[in-house]
Amino acid sequence: MVKSEFTSLSRNAEHMSVGSNCPSWNRHATSAVQTRLYHSTGSTPAEDDRISAPRAAKAVGLLPTYLADARAVEQYSLSTPNGALQLSVAENQLLEDLLVPSLTEFSSTLAFPADAIYYQPTQGRESFRKAMAAYLEDMLKLSKPMDADGIVVGAGCNAVLENLCISLAEPGEGVMIPTPYYAAFEFDLVARAGLSISPVTTMEYQDFDRESNIIPHEAYYPNRASLDAAVKMSLANGVNPRILLLSHPQNPLGICYPPEVVSEIIDWCREKKIHLITDEIYAGSVYRDDANFVSVLELASTGDGEALGLGPYIHLVYALSKDFALSGLRVGALYSENPKIRVPLQKLNDLCCISSHTQLLVEKMLTTASDDPNVSWTQGFRATSHERLRKRGDAWHSTLDELGIPYLKGTAGLFVWMDFQEFLPAMGSDDERERKLYLELLKEFGLLFTPGSSMKNEKPGFFRCVFTAASNEEFDLGMKRLKKYVHAKRS
Amino acid sequence: MVKSEFTSLSRNAEHMSVGSNCPSWNRHATSAVQTRLYHSTGSTPAEDDRISAPRAAKAVGLLPTYLADARAVEQYSLSTPNGALQLSVAENQLLEDLLVPSLTEFSSTLAFPADAIYYQPTQGRESFRKAMAAYLEDMLKLSKPMDADGIVVGAGCNAVLENLCISLAEPGEGVMIPTPYYAAFEFDLVARAGLSISPVTTMEYQDFDRESNIIPHEAYYPNRASLDAAVKMSLANGVNPRILLLSHPQNPLGICYPPEVVSEIIDWCREKKIHLITDEIYAGSVYRDDANFVSVLELASTGDGEALGLGPYIHLVYALSKDFALSGLRVGALYSENPKIRVPLQKLNDLCCISSHTQLLVEKMLTTASDDPNVSWTQGFRATSHERLRKRGDAWHSTLDELGIPYLKGTAGLFVWMDFQEFLPAMGSDDERERKLYLELLKEFGLLFTPGSSMKNEKPGFFRCVFTAASNEEFDLGMKRLKKYVHAKRS
Repeated sequence: MVKSEFTSLSRNAEHMSVGSNCPSWNRHATSAVQTRLYHSTGSTPAEDDRISAPRAAKAVGLLPTYLADARAVEQYSLSTPNGALQLSVAENQLLEDLLVPSLTEFSSTLAFPADAIYYQPTQGRESFRKAMAAYLEDMLKLSKPMDADGIVVGAGCNAVLENLCISLAEPGEGVMIPTPYYAAFEFDLVARAGLSISPVTTMEYQDFDRESNIIPHEAYYPNRASLDAAVKMSLANGVNPRILLLSHPQNPLGICYPPEVVSEIIDWCREKKIHLITDEIYAGSVYRDDANFVSVLELASTGDGEALGLGPYIHLVYALSKDFALSGLRVGALYSENPKIRVPLQKLNDLCCISSHTQLLVEKMLTTASDDPNVSWTQGFRATSHERLRKRGDAWHSTLDELGIPYLKGTAGLFVWMDFQEFLPAMGSDDERERKLYLELLKEFGLLFTPGSSMKNEKPGFFRCVFTAASNEEFDLGMKRLKKYVHAKRS
Repeated sequence: MVKSEFTSLSRNAEHMSVGSNCPSWNRHATSAVQTRLYHSTGSTPAEDDRISAPRAAKAVGLLPTYLADARAVEQYSLSTPNGALQLSVAENQLLEDLLVPSLTEFSSTLAFPADAIYYQPTQGRESFRKAMAAYLEDMLKLSKPMDADGIVVGAGCNAVLENLCISLAEPGEGVMIPTPYYAAFEFDLVARAGLSISPVTTMEYQDFDRESNIIPHEAYYPNRASLDAAVKMSLANGVNPRILLLSHPQNPLGICYPPEVVSEIIDWCREKKIHLITDEIYAGSVYRDDANFVSVLELASTGDGEALGLGPYIHLVYALSKDFALSGLRVGALYSENPKIRVPLQKLNDLCCISSHTQLLVEKMLTTASDDPNVSWTQGFRATSHERLRKRGDAWHSTLDELGIPYLKGTAGLFVWMDFQEFLPAMGSDDERERKLYLELLKEFGLLFTPGSSMKNEKPGFFRCVFTAASNEEFDLGMKRLKKYVHAKRS
């Protein structure tokens, strides 16, 4: 009994995973599998039931499992050139040369003010919240100033998102999310907050004319019809939807919803009194000029009253983990002008505060000038980041064009969404077919992509390629391997 | 309707509180009351019900309210010498001169390794966990080495405690806590974790012979009888107790449970299969040689198996907020050898990670040598801290001796627990009588102590004095004011 439990724990650990951005499975993290587990001495089955709470195991069960397979496969390195290439974790490794020297410099010139050792305002230091507001106004191109008191900074986007949702919905109520979606949302919203996910299915893209291998972005736009349908479905399942969570720019699709689509969603939410949370964690990674990205905050700003005039139903979450590749600093931020949740959010944030020391560092980064007097450090950094993202994105897009593989021509984020339906095996359930294809790509061709099923995509055969998680050499090799794969399959 | 809601929000904000250590009410934090709240335009009662979740308001309601009165009173400062003295917030301000230059130096010499920008292991960097283990082994005087893989570092003691309890008990199950207890435990364990508090009442001290004004420590020791009684009471209230949370050294009492008392508690917990969480956040602030403090980890270590041999029912939480006065860095740690919660704890901790940058800083602090080759930086720091605590403790104890006010002769922590029953007004309920006394001390004599009722003390008339939250001048004035008060009341 005891033994089988440990076995099951270990299996959990192996599977525990982790879609795109889950810390434990990137190259920097130690695997939970490696941790030592203690002998249990003489416990009985009855005792085993008491040594942990069922919700603990359930929380772990919420994590995606596809990387378990990847872990069983040799990873690519200079000494293992045939190992699998990591193209599935949403990490941007193109910015290290800019970040490391700057952070070292910022850190070395930090004075440590006496007040920083003591308890801070739970929502964050005032000067840091002001710096965050100024940064967001600039980066999101807002035409009115934010209210720094509407900002709460916490230990990561997941942490502030969890508290925001706890403040807006009761356990068992629903968070609507357009599919496909970032796999870790399920852990963030269900594990402790106790919410339910109500997926929003958008139009299938085969309904569009296809003249090229470019999937039309429109195929994935939510609208009144798809939102209404999702509400109906959710209610039929006994779940009352209270929140719509939008990933904008969209992960895993790598696209931006155009302003008219966003405005329709905003209007719908306000009419239905459903909270709209816009997750704009990739807003500083919009790398194409024609992306047509406009922040939900700008589109929802009514100009009525103070600050942006968002009213109680519009909220933003953001973090430095993607646009700055600073996931290790755990700096997230939320913004809301809803007066009823202001105090609860500040108080709940006490359970996920950012170190004063890191607040000081990041405040410095966000407020530093650059060598060019017309451009701040963050603006210069962002311009370089866009250039590098565009170069990688272009290269991957060209490869797909050349191969005639349908894909979404991304404009933002770190990914390309690809349609590999052509390569699905004929037999089996949807899940089995996609899993076979995933394993073939991984084991036979050394390509580790994020499978669409882990992101709740409706149809099997879609994959997300993260084009920033590899070195230049690895990225080039990835393109070669993909060509080899397609040629092998078609010949 | 809308207006009244805003009024109620503001009132909440004013009352929101906070016992001893809640960030929002110390002198460094901005008050939530000062935050700007937006106009709501034309919302209806039905709409109001949708703009926030009931659990948000409930969470705020868990915070203690006594400081609302304090906020209405002028605070002491050089320009307001008649203002009230802050002797209620558990902050140690005696260490600033040691900390600020050292942290500035540690910070300025920090290299920023490239791997620190990316996602870290969710349970903390390996080198930091090893440094934390070595520090705890030394500070807690453990005779066997800890397993660094049993450590999870998270954003504060409250954060790791919450996840530990979530992993050990289901919503609605009980956490037993001996009274009086740290007021914020209720927020930490109820707001999101959904647990219930089951108080453990210890013997009343009037059952002891009183030859002096010294309250016997024994009056507050839990034992098999009081624990059994608490279980019975909890079950009668429909709450199944799964955890016993021990504050050791005890806040607010300022005492340590002797080894035989702790051993009895450990045995009882193991027999009953109730998890024992020892909160040893003040273990580095044991300032008297005769304190007889022994860590629960040392007493529970069986030597069986690997690491300490604690088995699945013994767990520790710790943080740097008290012994190092570094509450602003939000560095908490938990330790457990329970294999079933290892992975859940690592994963849940993703929602309250410590910045890599602060992990690097604190690792440096914990591993630095001092000028004396035989003493590490933390050992030298601790010796100085003990000296200063003892000096303040002695002075306050002497004042109470001189005045003949019964008190617990503390040996650890930042407080003295005082019996002011003599000064309670005769009429009214227990709560009313204590509140009148509290307000008299505050408003007429400028003494802000923590009232026992906010810490769920059974009897009215007890107060906690925090003797480290004031400057030397303020502390001296506090002693003068107390003398003045007692003389005024007795004359």
